[in-house]
Amino acid sequence: MVLYLLDMLGVAVFAVSGALTAGRKSLDLFGVIVIAVITAIGGGTIRDLLLDNRPIFWIADPTYLVVIVAAALATLVYARFRRPPRGSLLVADAFGLALFTVIGAQTAEAAGVSSIIVVLMGTITGVAGGVLRDVLCAEIPLILRREIYATASIAGASVYVLLNDLAPGSQAAILVPMGLIFALRLAAIRLDLHVPPFKPKDREV
Amino acid sequence: MVLYLLDMLGVAVFAVSGALTAGRKSLDLFGVIVIAVITAIGGGTIRDLLLDNRPIFWIADPTYLVVIVAAALATLVYARFRRPPRGSLLVADAFGLALFTVIGAQTAEAAGVSSIIVVLMGTITGVAGGVLRDVLCAEIPLILRREIYATASIAGASVYVLLNDLAPGSQAAILVPMGLIFALRLAAIRLDLHVPPFKPKDREV
Amino acid sequence: MVLYLLDMLGVAVFAVSGALTAGRKSLDLFGVIVIAVITAIGGGTIRDLLLDNRPIFWIADPTYLVVIVAAALATLVYARFRRPPRGSLLVADAFGLALFTVIGAQTAEAAGVSSIIVVLMGTITGVAGGVLRDVLCAEIPLILRREIYATASIAGASVYVLLNDLAPGSQAAILVPMGLIFALRLAAIRLDLHVPPFKPKDREV
Repeated sequence: MVLYLLDMLGVAVFAVSGALTAGRKSLDLFGVIVIAVITAIGGGTIRDLLLDNRPIFWIADPTYLVVIVAAALATLVYARFRRPPRGSLLVADAFGLALFTVIGAQTAEAAGVSSIIVVLMGTITGVAGGVLRDVLCAEIPLILRREIYATASIAGASVYVLLNDLAPGSQAAILVPMGLIFALRLAAIRLDLHVPPFKPKDREV
Repeated sequence: MVLYLLDMLGVAVFAVSGALTAGRKSLDLFGVIVIAVITAIGGGTIRDLLLDNRPIFWIADPTYLVVIVAAALATLVYARFRRPPRGSLLVADAFGLALFTVIGAQTAEAAGVSSIIVVLMGTITGVAGGVLRDVLCAEIPLILRREIYATASIAGASVYVLLNDLAPGSQAAILVPMGLIFALRLAAIRLDLHVPPFKPKDREV
Repeated sequence: MVLYLLDMLGVAVFAVSGALTAGRKSLDLFGVIVIAVITAIGGGTIRDLLLDNRPIFWIADPTYLVVIVAAALATLVYARFRRPPRGSLLVADAFGLALFTVIGAQTAEAAGVSSIIVVLMGTITGVAGGVLRDVLCAEIPLILRREIYATASIAGASVYVLLNDLAPGSQAAILVPMGLIFALRLAAIRLDLHVPPFKPKDREV
């Protein structure tokens, strides 16, 4: 139940981030909705395809699509009358990354795969929606920016695996990694934190 | 049978649009064919993966691939000797969008999913091939252009759902939405029609 | 067994090519690893999804992921202290293309699909990982460059089908097309070989 509500919240915030990104591209209203839908369901869809979870979550329960369309429309209306708070796209994206990473890891664990795959599935679930959004909008993917992005997702998914091993099914195993990912992203954005970039000795590769 | 022939026609026109787009990129002959194939089968493949329709349509019936390769080669030969008619890429794309949206919606309906998902699957089927073509060719996706694109697809898929509800399995339920999508796209291109873009109050998001 | 070792080698060289490409983009360490993983498993994952081979190869056997992460880390360390040999990215990519094309064709053949689909699956398996790498890194996909790329993959997959028909299961049916693809790519890069580009009579399409 908590997982279900978090999942709804996750698709809603990614729908908002999709709508905000698409809105900057002068797409028409329905184009914005399509991008919002793809952003919101992209990560979970790839997760379900890879794990062969059938039917895909939004086919099994169309409530997701209703929530996504409503969130996208609300974003459209809000943005028409009031300026979105500064940095709202990055915050929505950080929140979606945190939610989807943990949900993805949890779903993978439920499918009985090994720990390294739980971490990878959490990361792919977390980043795929945003990557699809950026590729479709011809933006440089957020994942490419120097600040801790995939790192936050991998760290959170790993902490989830550890905590869930110690206390299976506990709320802490869900909330702690979510908080960690969200905090890492916000800190990275505000303080311009980053792990050292990989610099090859010579660009001539 | 009608569905089958329309599907063949759909892959052929998307193969033409893929070949024309790829041809402008100075790819070699086989690169053009690969892009044509991916453009033509992309939408239906994603549809079949999401709905778990197995085997995928072109694996079940390789005739599709023969038609696609033939259409791509014919486009190559034609374009070598005669100038393609003005706007031919946009017309081929509009026709493919119309065909694939309706076929995608029809396939989804046959799988017994709910109406909102029928509309979404029609739209994804219609736009995915062209999006893959544009992303692979490093073009700005057509879906991003301001003129009615996803809008046409959503409108057509919705009309399909309504008509098919009134008169299940009728030809009209197939032909009317197809005509609508095609007409909307052509009108949008010729008359520079567009629904109002979503403009956030402030770009600072 | 030979297939298994070649597959491991294939993911390792694509992990190296992913790490080298990502490294040029100033991603952080974990971002590089994510790109390396996606580059290395992308082709085989799409193959397994399309053929409905379950579970996906790297979910069934996480050794792949360990090899990929190790190869990416080794690339990071090496590149930090020594300059990667000139052209190393192109050579790693050529080797990965050769391996994955043949492995993809072989897997498709084992699934009992028709010859044209064996060739297409080999090509998609071979090029998809590199295309994902390039799209995620916002590079112009290698497949778009004029030199023989998809052509090499199609030629190799076709030769595989022919040889495997003459001598089913022979080592030659694996090694000859692999050598052909690798040689074609190296020759194309060094000698600036290319098949004539498709030039439409008029760009006005």
